[in-house]
Amino acid sequence: MVPLDVQGRIDEDELRRYVQWLIDRGVHGLYPNGSTGEFTRFSPQERRRIVQIVCQQAGGQVPVLAGAAEANIEQTLEACRAYADYGARAVAIVSPFYYKLSPESVYAYFRQIGQQSPIDVTLYNIPMFASPIDVPTITRLAEFDRIIGIKDSSGDLAFMMRMIAAIRPRRPDFVFLTGWEAVLVPMLIMGVDGGTHATSGVVPELTRKLYDLTRAGQLDQAVRLQYRLLELFDAMLYSADFPEGFRAAVDLRGIRLGASRQPLTEKQQLDRDNLSRKLQCILADFGVADQPVGGCPVRGQDAGLTVSEQDRIARLTQGVLNQLRERGLL
Amino acid sequence: MVPLDVQGRIDEDELRRYVQWLIDRGVHGLYPNGSTGEFTRFSPQERRRIVQIVCQQAGGQVPVLAGAAEANIEQTLEACRAYADYGARAVAIVSPFYYKLSPESVYAYFRQIGQQSPIDVTLYNIPMFASPIDVPTITRLAEFDRIIGIKDSSGDLAFMMRMIAAIRPRRPDFVFLTGWEAVLVPMLIMGVDGGTHATSGVVPELTRKLYDLTRAGQLDQAVRLQYRLLELFDAMLYSADFPEGFRAAVDLRGIRLGASRQPLTEKQQLDRDNLSRKLQCILADFGVADQPVGGCPVRGQDAGLTVSEQDRIARLTQGVLNQLRERGLL
Amino acid sequence: MVPLDVQGRIDEDELRRYVQWLIDRGVHGLYPNGSTGEFTRFSPQERRRIVQIVCQQAGGQVPVLAGAAEANIEQTLEACRAYADYGARAVAIVSPFYYKLSPESVYAYFRQIGQQSPIDVTLYNIPMFASPIDVPTITRLAEFDRIIGIKDSSGDLAFMMRMIAAIRPRRPDFVFLTGWEAVLVPMLIMGVDGGTHATSGVVPELTRKLYDLTRAGQLDQAVRLQYRLLELFDAMLYSADFPEGFRAAVDLRGIRLGASRQPLTEKQQLDRDNLSRKLQCILADFGVADQPVGGCPVRGQDAGLTVSEQDRIARLTQGVLNQLRERGLL
Amino acid sequence: MVPLDVQGRIDEDELRRYVQWLIDRGVHGLYPNGSTGEFTRFSPQERRRIVQIVCQQAGGQVPVLAGAAEANIEQTLEACRAYADYGARAVAIVSPFYYKLSPESVYAYFRQIGQQSPIDVTLYNIPMFASPIDVPTITRLAEFDRIIGIKDSSGDLAFMMRMIAAIRPRRPDFVFLTGWEAVLVPMLIMGVDGGTHATSGVVPELTRKLYDLTRAGQLDQAVRLQYRLLELFDAMLYSADFPEGFRAAVDLRGIRLGASRQPLTEKQQLDRDNLSRKLQCILADFGVADQPVGGCPVRGQDAGLTVSEQDRIARLTQGVLNQLRERGLL
Repeated sequence: MVPLDVQGRIDEDELRRYVQWLIDRGVHGLYPNGSTGEFTRFSPQERRRIVQIVCQQAGGQVPVLAGAAEANIEQTLEACRAYADYGARAVAIVSPFYYKLSPESVYAYFRQIGQQSPIDVTLYNIPMFASPIDVPTITRLAEFDRIIGIKDSSGDLAFMMRMIAAIRPRRPDFVFLTGWEAVLVPMLIMGVDGGTHATSGVVPELTRKLYDLTRAGQLDQAVRLQYRLLELFDAMLYSADFPEGFRAAVDLRGIRLGASRQPLTEKQQLDRDNLSRKLQCILADFGVADQPVGGCPVRGQDAGLTVSEQDRIARLTQGVLNQLRERGLL
Repeated sequence: MVPLDVQGRIDEDELRRYVQWLIDRGVHGLYPNGSTGEFTRFSPQERRRIVQIVCQQAGGQVPVLAGAAEANIEQTLEACRAYADYGARAVAIVSPFYYKLSPESVYAYFRQIGQQSPIDVTLYNIPMFASPIDVPTITRLAEFDRIIGIKDSSGDLAFMMRMIAAIRPRRPDFVFLTGWEAVLVPMLIMGVDGGTHATSGVVPELTRKLYDLTRAGQLDQAVRLQYRLLELFDAMLYSADFPEGFRAAVDLRGIRLGASRQPLTEKQQLDRDNLSRKLQCILADFGVADQPVGGCPVRGQDAGLTVSEQDRIARLTQGVLNQLRERGLL
Repeated sequence: MVPLDVQGRIDEDELRRYVQWLIDRGVHGLYPNGSTGEFTRFSPQERRRIVQIVCQQAGGQVPVLAGAAEANIEQTLEACRAYADYGARAVAIVSPFYYKLSPESVYAYFRQIGQQSPIDVTLYNIPMFASPIDVPTITRLAEFDRIIGIKDSSGDLAFMMRMIAAIRPRRPDFVFLTGWEAVLVPMLIMGVDGGTHATSGVVPELTRKLYDLTRAGQLDQAVRLQYRLLELFDAMLYSADFPEGFRAAVDLRGIRLGASRQPLTEKQQLDRDNLSRKLQCILADFGVADQPVGGCPVRGQDAGLTVSEQDRIARLTQGVLNQLRERGLL
Repeated sequence: MVPLDVQGRIDEDELRRYVQWLIDRGVHGLYPNGSTGEFTRFSPQERRRIVQIVCQQAGGQVPVLAGAAEANIEQTLEACRAYADYGARAVAIVSPFYYKLSPESVYAYFRQIGQQSPIDVTLYNIPMFASPIDVPTITRLAEFDRIIGIKDSSGDLAFMMRMIAAIRPRRPDFVFLTGWEAVLVPMLIMGVDGGTHATSGVVPELTRKLYDLTRAGQLDQAVRLQYRLLELFDAMLYSADFPEGFRAAVDLRGIRLGASRQPLTEKQQLDRDNLSRKLQCILADFGVADQPVGGCPVRGQDAGLTVSEQDRIARLTQGVLNQLRERGLL
């Protein structure tokens, strides 16, 4: 995620501080210009600058995987060349979006990039936002040496297994990364190499711990931590339009992200404030934030709501709506 | 799956033989009138008879989970009463289908069943075919003692985890079963109790082995077997309209299922014959069937197709289509 | 729609009265066992009885198109034979549901029916509930003389035009009916023959008028009436799970439908009561019902809600939710 | 659509020629940087240049509606200012894409634009590619004077009617344009003001004629022409990834568009060549192109294919596939 100042410009100092903060907490690498980084909301020049700063600050401490998708192949290749110069280890290129392309068109697009890129390329499959990359297409693309891996954010473990089964026998070096940290532990167990996760921008020490526990075979602890991280993940993902919930959580860690370029209405701002309180309680439970003023509910208590209580709430809410309706407000 | 004779009637002898064959190969239980069993293609009377035969043949060797969904709640409850009499351990009731119901309606439906059923009830969530059961709804329904578990065929591991996180703290006895054997191993690792699987009707000894290996902590072997079963699962699931691929595979095991009540065109019959050959090779590789006459391709070889070869095939196919077009046949 | 008594059984007297009420108000025909009639919630025996009563009461006054889909082809053909005996003009058969079948399977299913049915068959395409029937499939099926038309409830006018363009040149007698009365006028203008509509069970005199105005070329009046009926249609369709909103409206016309076999929660019952008041106002505006006690809002007034008022409501609602949350109720 | 030279740069001379060609054939206005114009595949600087050229060439002959969506609101507003300077009549701004935003976020986005734009704004709803704009949201946005209309490419006539019913009573000047020319005639009859259509870039004289016939009340002729244009539309839309089929058709009209920035594989190039022949026959039938060398099939003849012939083709194709399979090529 990219900190912005009050004018909405990139806050370069805070970005450097954030990068170092992430490295200090154990991330294995950095991924600027991803979906969580709102790459589509920056200009091409800004995207360059973001990668430059991240590469400079990383300075060899950890590798950088730079999001390089631009408006067309020619401009994407220019970005690839720039990022190679900045010292990025590889680029990640999301499948074409806006238009929903067929597998053959997705292949044509990445084939040309695979043939011409001066830097290693990781494909990025995120079917909820962009044209899907299916198993036959990724299999054909694995023919190109420059294409070294795929990040998949579908969250579909069987799909990941199908890709691994199709490609690993002929390209044992091909890298499979998940973007769905809700199931990182089972992904790793089934053979995935790692992940690039929005949540790692929030609690890098915990996603790193999840990885380490799984690799060390301490599955009981890994599974327990996975369940706890799922609660945080769901709160960030489903309580606001992506990636606003993740931004709210990063703010709570002491990084000043500023306001997103996608504005909020007054109602959304209220929702965000409520979400922040909820997130602060979850983070406090992990020991990485203080409880909010006023404290937090006892964990699991809300789960104790009985059906009759739920019916009461439903009736109460219905009463409010009826009153609004009677006053002609609805 | 239910064997049919040449008149399309239930072949009761073969059904009994199939039930015993499954038990002999290690299934933990039986699930008549499920989706793989094509319950919607039988009359209410036939569904009764199927459960009766399965319960008789099981005779206490393994428990029976009987699919009991009928046209409406009253008739469903009548089926519940009958299946309790037959000795079923519990019933499974699919969420209402045809109409896509809201969560509140799904709740209303199952609440009444939960209040009135004389036998334990397992909910059945299969969102690709029926109204989805979401996490708040299943949580509300877990208030009823008669509702003892859920079978989920969404294949979404994070969704399963959300249900477990919401329900297990207050109902530790609540049972979670997956219907998506493509990811049975990771499901079990994350806390799922077991599964009811179409594939268990085909290779019961192998899905049982998958379960046992995982429970014994032999993850390396379990993961390898899971990948091999995924290949079989995909071949059965995606090569024909469900559940015809599974029926074709059961035929290869020596059970005479007969023709489905959903007819096939000539083209589909040809496709099924080709699928059978492919399935026979996979089953032979597992050692549970002989290779077909003419043998099988060396495994993994077709994966060696290069891009230029694929282009050649594309051109060749294009040529054929062009010729058909020129002759006015397309 | 089928009236039920307090025990949930078919109220045969009220059904006869309803049939006659519809005929007296100008419907061109009757369609028992359709989606609005909740055919899936009756037993096979009940479906027979419904058609029998409707045919008896119609007694040649208007033709009957009887929904004949049963669990499988054999039983569907038996229903066809029975409905022919009862005097139905034709049957309507919905595409197979629950399983989502491929076009080839849909073709196989209807081909056999087309070859063996003793009565004319209308296909029924309702892709939101059942396997879709695409243009190539309906074109292939139009080869069978017994298949005389299609009812399409997709609401997609371009799709309807594609079917007409493909079939009418070779089967000028093939009948195209829409099930999406929201756009009946434009459908008729583009060549559709008519419709079978849930709304015709509520305000038969008005859908008949819509048809007559369009056929008479009085497009200005037809368009105005279409817009007014759209408001009614939307209120019935989107304010409750289908077809509960239509049932609520029929009740307001003086037909005693009784409770649906799909139960309502307390909250849904409250919503239904509110919907009834809203529907009564719309029906009163058409002159076919009295205004509810307490009167109706001036039409179009709620549309005058300004943005600042909407913001106020949003804040008010937010306040209520916050209070519920503080009390630990949410 | 934007002509490109062999280096992939904007061919400014050909673009001017194309603009004049369109005006000469009767378009009511011009819409650069739309979806058919592949606006996402150009840089921000190129998008400016395209609008500048179109405005210059139009020179007051017809109004220009300039697509102004950029990476964020600030840059979008800069584009608005530039396009106002170039003499555009209004801008069209597509709903935010890539991220799927909630209605509240869509409102927040357009509200700020509506408050700050120096030029009239038309919203652009294209739910298959971008975040949907629903009826309540467009109703709230119609409060802003600067927002003067909406272009809707959903193709859903009932949705268009709902917008008209909600907005026109309070904003009689609000403009409703359809982007789904498959149903232009019924859209116009139901009250839509006009359309901005990909097909108008191909056969502007015919879409203009369709409009004029409908406005003149010559519905029989309008309906006939609508059916003929549907055939062309479908061929362009469904035979290749959008908008490649439209590009192929424009080439046939003598405009040299050059290659798209989205590359084609060899197989796709073959498909495009076949499509061109098919399109040329349709255009020849309209009298706006010559028949291709070798002539065209007699119209409607392919429709005469019997079921047995279709079965023969299915078997023939199956045979070819079997041979390929035996040779290990599939």
